[in-house]
Formats: sequence, C-alpha cells, structure tokens
Amino acid sequence: MLARALVFDVFGTLVDWRTAISSAFEASGLPGDPEELADDWRARLWPATAAINKGTRSWSNFDELHLETLDELLADRGMELDVVKRRGLVAAWHRLEPWPDARDGLEALRRERPVAALSNGHVALLVDLARHGDLRFDCLFSAELARAYKPARVVYETAACLLGLEPEELMLVAAHPLDLAGARRAGLRTAFVDRPLEYGRGSPARDDPDADVSVADLHELSRRLG
Amino acid sequence: MLARALVFDVFGTLVDWRTAISSAFEASGLPGDPEELADDWRARLWPATAAINKGTRSWSNFDELHLETLDELLADRGMELDVVKRRGLVAAWHRLEPWPDARDGLEALRRERPVAALSNGHVALLVDLARHGDLRFDCLFSAELARAYKPARVVYETAACLLGLEPEELMLVAAHPLDLAGARRAGLRTAFVDRPLEYGRGSPARDDPDADVSVADLHELSRRLG
Repeated sequence: MLARALVFDVFGTLVDWRTAISSAFEASGLPGDPEELADDWRARLWPATAAINKGTRSWSNFDELHLETLDELLADRGMELDVVKRRGLVAAWHRLEPWPDARDGLEALRRERPVAALSNGHVALLVDLARHGDLRFDCLFSAELARAYKPARVVYETAACLLGLEPEELMLVAAHPLDLAGARRAGLRTAFVDRPLEYGRGSPARDDPDADVSVADLHELSRRLG
Repeated sequence: MLARALVFDVFGTLVDWRTAISSAFEASGLPGDPEELADDWRARLWPATAAINKGTRSWSNFDELHLETLDELLADRGMELDVVKRRGLVAAWHRLEPWPDARDGLEALRRERPVAALSNGHVALLVDLARHGDLRFDCLFSAELARAYKPARVVYETAACLLGLEPEELMLVAAHPLDLAGARRAGLRTAFVDRPLEYGRGSPARDDPDADVSVADLHELSRRLG
C-alpha cells in the first residue's frame, strides 16, 4: 500500500459535528428536535458548495455559508433567533470533539509519513478545530486554497501539488464515499473509515467497495498501512 | 501587546541553515571553505526571488531555485559536481536543525494563541523541516500560496486573510529586519528575535528598533507576550 502522505477529511471523519451542533441548538432555546435541526443545517451546505463549484455563485467560506443556511433554515420553519445567538451557533462549528480514536490515531500515522487535513472547512476554522481537539497535523489544506469545494478535482490536486507529490502518491482518508470518489477521479488512493455514529444511532450503513482500504478506525488504518 | 496569532519566519529564525549546508558542502568533497560556500549559495537566492516579485521571471520554488543557484555558484568557481551530489545538496535544505529554544519555545507560545510558519520555503519543504525538527505549528503558510516572496506585501496579507484576522491582529516573528519591515508595511505587528549565530561566530550584529518587541529567544518572547 504505497502512500507517501495522507490527507484527512475532517467533518464527520475526524470530528463529530452532530453532537456539538445538536447541543448548541438545544442551548439556543429553539423548539424542535435538536438533532433533526443539526442534520437539516448540515444538509443545506451542499447546494451552496455545488453552486460555487458550478460558478453560479462566488466563493464563500464555511462561516459565511453556515450563517446563510441557518437563516434559511429558521425562515423555512418560521423561527426567529437574535443575531448574537445565530453567531453563537455558527461559532459552535469551531469547537467540535474528535472521535475517540482520532488524536492518537493521527499521532501513530504521522510517525511514518506526513499527515495533513484536506477539508472543505476554511483554514481559520481548521486551525480552531485542530487546536480544540489537540489534533496534530503536519499541514492544513483546505478547499479555500483552491477556491472550490470537494469533490471538485482541483481541491485534491492542490493538496498533492503543495506536498510535491504525484496524485497516486497521496491517499485521502474519509468516511464519505462521495469525497473518496472525487479523490479517485483526481488520481489519489483512498481509505474509507467507518463512522457509524456520524448521524447518530440511526446512521445509514456506509462502505466504499472502490477504496484501496476500508477500516473501522485510525488505529486499524495505522496497522494496515504499516 | 495584542497579537491574536503569531507567524514565524523559518530559515535563520527557527532553524540553523548554515551549519547543515556547510556540512553538506564539506561532505561533497568540493574544494574551498564550506561556510563561505554556504553563505554564497544562500545569498544567490535573493536576486532570483526579487526577479519573481518584479514579474521578470515566473514562479519557482526553493528546490528549483536552490538547484539553479548551485549550478551558478559552481560555474562561477569553475567547479563541477555530478547531478546526484547536486541533488543531495539541494535535499540538505530539508534537514536543518532548529535553534535550541525553537521547539519548546513554539510549544509555550502556541498554548496561548495559534502559531504558524510564514516562510519563503515552499509547503513541502516546510513540512519536511517541521517534521525533522519536531516543530509543532498550527498551520504552515508559505510564499508559495501567494506566488510571491517575502518581503512582498501580499505574502503577509495572505497569511492574515487565511487566519481570518486583520493584519494588525497578527505578529511576525523573525530575525531579519527586511522581513519585519515587509510585515509592517502590510500592517502586521513585529517581533525581532536575535539569532547571533545565523552566519557563524562572525555574524553581523542585528536589531530592529521599529519592532514592537525585541527578544533574545522564544522563551523570552513567550514571557513578554504573556
């Protein structure tokens, strides 16, 4: 399994966004199921990122998109929230807890090769998440550097180029088949890591039969990559 | 002393390039004083980076510039070296030792605020140096991201923008007054750190009276910034 460096998806793959965002909704005092609100908010990102990739809207980072999609979510449900509380919900995305294996797993993996983030989150958000979770990366790569969102090919190519590697020398680790498929289209190797609780206990089962390797957590990935 | 994040120059400020490059010249079997050869090689970078900033030549990274300027140095002195040894000298820039206070000093500083590299070295080179020296940064910023070299204003502005900060919220730490002056032109705060051995025992004395703070090492900087 040749991979001279690893790049990691962050939201859902290394950190649990749903627990913190649900708690933030609960604390906000909004009515409704906080987990359902969290899922709705998260799902509203994709049309916005797709529009940016298509060129039908200009670049906006996750803070900007989170604020805008929260406003839409509230409007669609006829709910109101003052601006301080709305900004507090957006800020909650900067303080997400890592999955239990993430910190030590990254440490084990980076002993053998460079390990970087490759996230749709902007650089400032990734800095906050890495510091909050004490996640040590050798470098942070973001969609922001390419001004396009995964799964656009240029995002993966930018990371490989900045690491001085050919795409096939780089491996993306992610819990999301769409992200992994995008990486493969750019020529990267791929590792699927299962995160069966990303959407809570009722999470849909996922797998990626096309991945070079499929693991239950980062410790297993470390053993498999050697 | 308000600085919400710190960015660090790397070559000469955090790592000692001259000792390793002199040793590499010595090991190469080339005639002449290896320290003088190291100084000559280093000095040949600046006309190349200035030409890139002026737009009279296209972007090249440090590996490319190091190989080109080594060829010039050898030609000017009527010396020859096979390509494997030339590539070995270029690779030596990826394995430089940190100054004695750098690793622990960065750790102390990053407990209180984000700490990033901001170097003219390209990202892949910075990844290698940080791993070699076990230097922990929250993020690596490089001239490569702006496709211009320090002291061009856009390099500093790019780092501030990616951190989501106003320029005056960011402080550059460097041993080089020209770099610090460039940062100030971009609106950053500046910290001068003395590296009296950068050019060996005969290093010219340096200071920067315009810096917000002037320190002997990173531990003093950590105490001063609080």
